[in-house]
Amino acid sequence: MGLIVQKYGGTSVADLDRIREVARRVIKTYDQGNDVVVILSAMAGITDSLINMAREITESPDKRELDVLMATGEQTTSALLAMTLKSMSHPAQSLLGHQAEVLTDHCYGNARIVDIRADRIMELLQKRHIVVVAGFQGCDLEGNITTLGRGGSDTSAVAIAAALKADACEIYTDVAGVYTADPNVCKKARKLDRISYDEMLEMASIGAKVLQIRSVEFAKKYNVPVHVRSSFTEEEGTMVVNEDANMESVVVSGVTYNKNEARITLKKVPDRPGIAAKIFAPIAEAGISVDMIIQNTRAGGQTDLTFTVSKADYETALELEKKVAQEIHAEDVFGDENIAKVSVTGVGMRSHPGVASKMFAALARENINILMISTSEIRISCLIEEKYAELAVQVLHTAFGLDQE
Amino acid sequence: MGLIVQKYGGTSVADLDRIREVARRVIKTYDQGNDVVVILSAMAGITDSLINMAREITESPDKRELDVLMATGEQTTSALLAMTLKSMSHPAQSLLGHQAEVLTDHCYGNARIVDIRADRIMELLQKRHIVVVAGFQGCDLEGNITTLGRGGSDTSAVAIAAALKADACEIYTDVAGVYTADPNVCKKARKLDRISYDEMLEMASIGAKVLQIRSVEFAKKYNVPVHVRSSFTEEEGTMVVNEDANMESVVVSGVTYNKNEARITLKKVPDRPGIAAKIFAPIAEAGISVDMIIQNTRAGGQTDLTFTVSKADYETALELEKKVAQEIHAEDVFGDENIAKVSVTGVGMRSHPGVASKMFAALARENINILMISTSEIRISCLIEEKYAELAVQVLHTAFGLDQE
Repeated sequence: MGLIVQKYGGTSVADLDRIREVARRVIKTYDQGNDVVVILSAMAGITDSLINMAREITESPDKRELDVLMATGEQTTSALLAMTLKSMSHPAQSLLGHQAEVLTDHCYGNARIVDIRADRIMELLQKRHIVVVAGFQGCDLEGNITTLGRGGSDTSAVAIAAALKADACEIYTDVAGVYTADPNVCKKARKLDRISYDEMLEMASIGAKVLQIRSVEFAKKYNVPVHVRSSFTEEEGTMVVNEDANMESVVVSGVTYNKNEARITLKKVPDRPGIAAKIFAPIAEAGISVDMIIQNTRAGGQTDLTFTVSKADYETALELEKKVAQEIHAEDVFGDENIAKVSVTGVGMRSHPGVASKMFAALARENINILMISTSEIRISCLIEEKYAELAVQVLHTAFGLDQE
Repeated sequence: MGLIVQKYGGTSVADLDRIREVARRVIKTYDQGNDVVVILSAMAGITDSLINMAREITESPDKRELDVLMATGEQTTSALLAMTLKSMSHPAQSLLGHQAEVLTDHCYGNARIVDIRADRIMELLQKRHIVVVAGFQGCDLEGNITTLGRGGSDTSAVAIAAALKADACEIYTDVAGVYTADPNVCKKARKLDRISYDEMLEMASIGAKVLQIRSVEFAKKYNVPVHVRSSFTEEEGTMVVNEDANMESVVVSGVTYNKNEARITLKKVPDRPGIAAKIFAPIAEAGISVDMIIQNTRAGGQTDLTFTVSKADYETALELEKKVAQEIHAEDVFGDENIAKVSVTGVGMRSHPGVASKMFAALARENINILMISTSEIRISCLIEEKYAELAVQVLHTAFGLDQE
């Protein structure tokens, strides 16, 4: 008996049959004596088709109005699920973002939750209602509708679980949990029973799409135990929890890859203060995020500087840097889209030396050349040629003892 | 220079091209120096398809949740129009029912507006924004979303115009205005330049679908001048206004018909107190509206009682009355679906005697038998055989001098 928050993603509410399935699962939890709050995404594909409609009007639709438009997606599924629950003789009520008082800043399209006043949810729970909250949406202090960005329903769920001090936050999705590697690439990938918030953060930031990264930050901050699991089976998924001693005995918990980056190199850049700022200012102004940055010293007061951006921003970034190169008298600018980033992640790295050399050796055995390296406390990433990405994942998975028995 | 409220119906916002057309019209009014508030319906067909989706879940979807679902229709068009206006370099902002503070009672699906706090609209107008309000929707005092019933956007528009003390309320639709008769039936029908609130009320209640009847009540109560016109042309439409001396010189301003009724007769009903109540109680309990009621005295303490209901309720009502007939010992119950109601309406009737006899004579000349008669101060309706409906409209149109020159 407890208070359970359940979040269902777009594929789990893709049509009325799937919504009926969700209702059955919710009722099962409710009938066991639990209080249940359900957070829903829009039907799969709806958010994209709404954005496309807006883009037919204009290349850059007004952000406030785009949020008003997109919010209809979760409004629809929430009303439909509440209706379905009531038709199955269970008390239920939908609440939109502003009704559930999910207060955000006014950054349309990518708003951050600043507060959740859970009074109305609590009131309904006390009457033993199932509360269905539209995910992905909130409102600012002036009552304008805001949305939380891609995957924002995960953050809605975790934030509401935190505000309600829920006993569990279950994220239902179309995969069975968090894997040691992408099962499509690595046949021997295993589902993890547990993973720490920090590992999940690193994995989310390097391409694992199971959870929105901000939802993990939220879960870590408020210590919300998150259970990632499939809405298509009854199987247990992966618990995302606080790090414990047991976890540190495992050196590497997952291998990920990301083919969505491209690199840009400025050759023979004059090595003097303020140059790096000049190189990255126009990129930042264009709203382009930079991932890895590497600067190597050359002889003669010159340096080579390489960085990576997402493939979508590659052309723009390259054009910008060509102008910069002229201004700062760099010798040349060139880029490469055929790259991939392979990473190993694990909290155990902190206490186990030699992970990096083991990784480099494993790649070397397959003659995979390392183009760039970047590291965090619990992650090591290598940039390699794109064609080796899958091979690298498999090799590292085996090298770090992650293969399924 | 003034404050203009414009309402656009479903066919006027049926797709992005139509919405662009609406934007151009709005901008034209705005650029003439007017403040503009726009009220929108959902895209044509959307409300019905949302209802059908809900009906796939259950025969009788929860009314609160159905309103949440339906409200997405106007939310979508409002966001799209505001985006379009902004993409055309005009300041605009959408407001949903609760944001525009359209407060209603909590009668889901058919809520009545109790108050409009127009502060937020006024604030935006003072900044010279075009304000786009989602029609058809409001919220109750607890913040639940409500909808105002079929055609509710008309009522939204008139109520907001009243609250803002607007100089004009323009209702854009797919017809050019209010006609002396349905132009599809009566080739000689003329568009009226002006019509009184009372006449419009009578015409709306007997089948003219130009304006929702409650919007006319609202307009009359708050003396809002309503201009019904086409969004497909620049032509002037029909002004719905307070009665003036000029109007009274015209005896009949319109001829309407309604084929959507059926009649039920109870024969030889014992003529004693309380019988009528017994006959209509089960009908009322079933939520069926009765239109005309006629009771004729017969010899021998017996009476015949006839009434009409909408065709959709006919079967149910007939079954109920069969039971009633047994209980009260009426001789027989029979019904007829092949009927039509033809009406003439005009404020001039008050001061011009002989309208009824003129109507009866005109019908008699064509051998059209009158089955029932009902009258109001400014309307006379006759029930006739359905097959004569069109003929009757044409004959009456000519008889009362309404034909186009």
